[in-house]
Amino acid sequence: MRMVDLIEKKRNGSAHTKEEIDFIINGYTNDDIPDYQMSAWSMAVYFQGMDDQERAALTNAMVHSGETIDLSAIEGIKVDKHSTGGVGDTTTLVLAPLVASVGVPVAKMSGRGLGHTGGTIDKLESISGFNVEISNNTFIELVNRNKVAVIGQTHNLTPADKKLYGLRDVTGTVNSIPLIASSIMSKKIASGADAIVLDVKTGSGAFMKELKDAKELANAMVKIGRSLNRKTSAVISDMSQPLGYAIGNALEVKEAINTLKGEGPDDLYELCLTLGSHMVVLANKATTLEEARNLLIESIQSGKALQHFKLFIEAQNGEESVVDDTTKLPQAKYQIDVKAESTGYVSEIVADQIGIAAMMLGAGRATKESKIDVSVGIELRKKIGDEVKKGDPLVTIHANSEKVIEVIEKIKHSYTITSSSVRAPELIYSIISE
Amino acid sequence: MRMVDLIEKKRNGSAHTKEEIDFIINGYTNDDIPDYQMSAWSMAVYFQGMDDQERAALTNAMVHSGETIDLSAIEGIKVDKHSTGGVGDTTTLVLAPLVASVGVPVAKMSGRGLGHTGGTIDKLESISGFNVEISNNTFIELVNRNKVAVIGQTHNLTPADKKLYGLRDVTGTVNSIPLIASSIMSKKIASGADAIVLDVKTGSGAFMKELKDAKELANAMVKIGRSLNRKTSAVISDMSQPLGYAIGNALEVKEAINTLKGEGPDDLYELCLTLGSHMVVLANKATTLEEARNLLIESIQSGKALQHFKLFIEAQNGEESVVDDTTKLPQAKYQIDVKAESTGYVSEIVADQIGIAAMMLGAGRATKESKIDVSVGIELRKKIGDEVKKGDPLVTIHANSEKVIEVIEKIKHSYTITSSSVRAPELIYSIISE
Repeated sequence: MRMVDLIEKKRNGSAHTKEEIDFIINGYTNDDIPDYQMSAWSMAVYFQGMDDQERAALTNAMVHSGETIDLSAIEGIKVDKHSTGGVGDTTTLVLAPLVASVGVPVAKMSGRGLGHTGGTIDKLESISGFNVEISNNTFIELVNRNKVAVIGQTHNLTPADKKLYGLRDVTGTVNSIPLIASSIMSKKIASGADAIVLDVKTGSGAFMKELKDAKELANAMVKIGRSLNRKTSAVISDMSQPLGYAIGNALEVKEAINTLKGEGPDDLYELCLTLGSHMVVLANKATTLEEARNLLIESIQSGKALQHFKLFIEAQNGEESVVDDTTKLPQAKYQIDVKAESTGYVSEIVADQIGIAAMMLGAGRATKESKIDVSVGIELRKKIGDEVKKGDPLVTIHANSEKVIEVIEKIKHSYTITSSSVRAPELIYSIISE
Repeated sequence: MRMVDLIEKKRNGSAHTKEEIDFIINGYTNDDIPDYQMSAWSMAVYFQGMDDQERAALTNAMVHSGETIDLSAIEGIKVDKHSTGGVGDTTTLVLAPLVASVGVPVAKMSGRGLGHTGGTIDKLESISGFNVEISNNTFIELVNRNKVAVIGQTHNLTPADKKLYGLRDVTGTVNSIPLIASSIMSKKIASGADAIVLDVKTGSGAFMKELKDAKELANAMVKIGRSLNRKTSAVISDMSQPLGYAIGNALEVKEAINTLKGEGPDDLYELCLTLGSHMVVLANKATTLEEARNLLIESIQSGKALQHFKLFIEAQNGEESVVDDTTKLPQAKYQIDVKAESTGYVSEIVADQIGIAAMMLGAGRATKESKIDVSVGIELRKKIGDEVKKGDPLVTIHANSEKVIEVIEKIKHSYTITSSSVRAPELIYSIISE
């Protein structure tokens, strides 16, 4: 087999065989296929796409390009959840203790990554003492005991995906459904998931701005999962404005605690119940989504979910009393309100601009070297559809510096206020159930 | 400017500005833009194409990526001819002395290259003593004195094209009209041509198998030439079978001599008159194509053209007596006939398979290191439309080894003989006149 022939085959619109895809991915991982051929091939894939068999074969080849995690020592069906990224997405912090509290094993591997705020482990580390640098044995032991644990990613998972993603980033080939879908699914499968619940975001704050593209991506991932014998469901949810109210690491932990108490933002609460119900069903802890949902609501109302969060924190040496007193979480020095300049209704909040504003405060990493300040962030006070009077706070900035003029400007530009009333956007557009 | 943004721009179907194209070509020539971005961009060009302005800007950027040849010391309008490559294409050997004999200056720079047979200088070097390693001054002096000279390519012409062509060859991006057209035209323009006559081949032995593609390429090149102020005409000619009868270096010199005597194959003779007429008109040595054609016919009939070939050979230290006695050209040891296995009419000769057969004999270079044997080759005895009886020779193989079983097999497979009569293919499909 010669790579140039495979590039031409894809360029001409033909489908690759499994053997061809293995040749490409193994060759690229081993540096036998150079970057310049891989980028030309990726661009051909961008234009010609891939069929279902190719997508599954590509995902499988990437899974086996490096180590895979064996979670068989953990009892039960390990269900992983993946969100495609957005602004103020606190679902993992809520879902991990919530579904664990009804018996679903949550063995979460997480990275730090770049973004508007930190990753899940950055957020958890805003709890004093919380330790994710645990051994594999401890990790498995904790999940078996408490149904939930989080470990920092230390393994050489899907090296082909890492290498290819870096190349796609500089060659205009990121935006390809088969390449995105196989990238996400290969990481989940290599991490040992038996079943996967996908939260595909759409709207101004999401990678997939258009609902059509989000649906296509969700379908692609569900098909890949099923082809590779992982039960997979997907929820397509709104990211035309930030989810919940909090954008920032400690702020999101506080919001997660409130949500586990049943006192969180409606949209975050509802999305967690939806995603959580699918997780519970895939883990065989309920037979219907309705039954699963009731289990979760009951766990929140009884205080069981919140107690489970405490247990989870304590097991990883965190200061579990933050659950009872959120003022023990790191607090920023300054709280600065950004006020409405007119009276009316909020019609738009440009989510990714709010995300960038949070990053400017220090809540996220712009480069691998950036240090995160877990105490800073943005707290929304008004969301789309809300009525506002001139002078009402739209958001509260949590900052450790008073020099936040640019952040204020960015937030002001992100909000649009109109005189006529506005409907809040739908939260959930579509669900693909297993 | 960032290359990744320009890749995305082209990927999305937008046209580049002249500045963007200069950035890409200069950056690639200087190694500031890596191969992996250039190959992704080339694939995007493959799918999205380029408009006329982009093609002209790309050609111009490649012309100025290295040295350019200044032929202003040569009197008259320097007209260059370019054929897009085929099998048994002896036009340059005929045209150089022929048009020079009617006063058109021919300053030919030529390379060795890979292919079924050698390049023009390999062919000329089958004439004992013929020397192409002459100085620039001698080259210019010879063209001014005799209207014709050939020099081996020693300059650093169009390095961007050389680098990009090498990359396209291994990344499935050769077959793109804007990239092919700019590659050919940049070399001609950098070589100092004032006007250009293009011979675009189509059919089984050509790079452009389909007439539609050949027309598109011809139009693209003519437009580029005109945009860059080079008078340009194009002839689209048949390469569904080899041109003339000879495929091999010394064999083609002999065929050229016969054609200059008016005793050559009809198709080669006619194509040379057509291309030559355009060259004469572009050089302002005649006002109409008819007048130009008559000048050329008169030169052949009077023996002037043949004498001019002698003058040309002599001026470059070649053994000019080969013109009067072609047995002085290198001869292969064995002449082996491949005979027809049935009676009927030749309906097909797969030209590129005949070319490969010639290369297997040693007539051409498969790799840069291959040594050419100028004496070997293939002489067609029957062409499409000819009647054959079982046992008639289809071709005569000129070889220096008797072990030619594979070559014979390849030739047999290239010929198709049918029982019903067959029309010879058209020679010239289309002409774009300046």
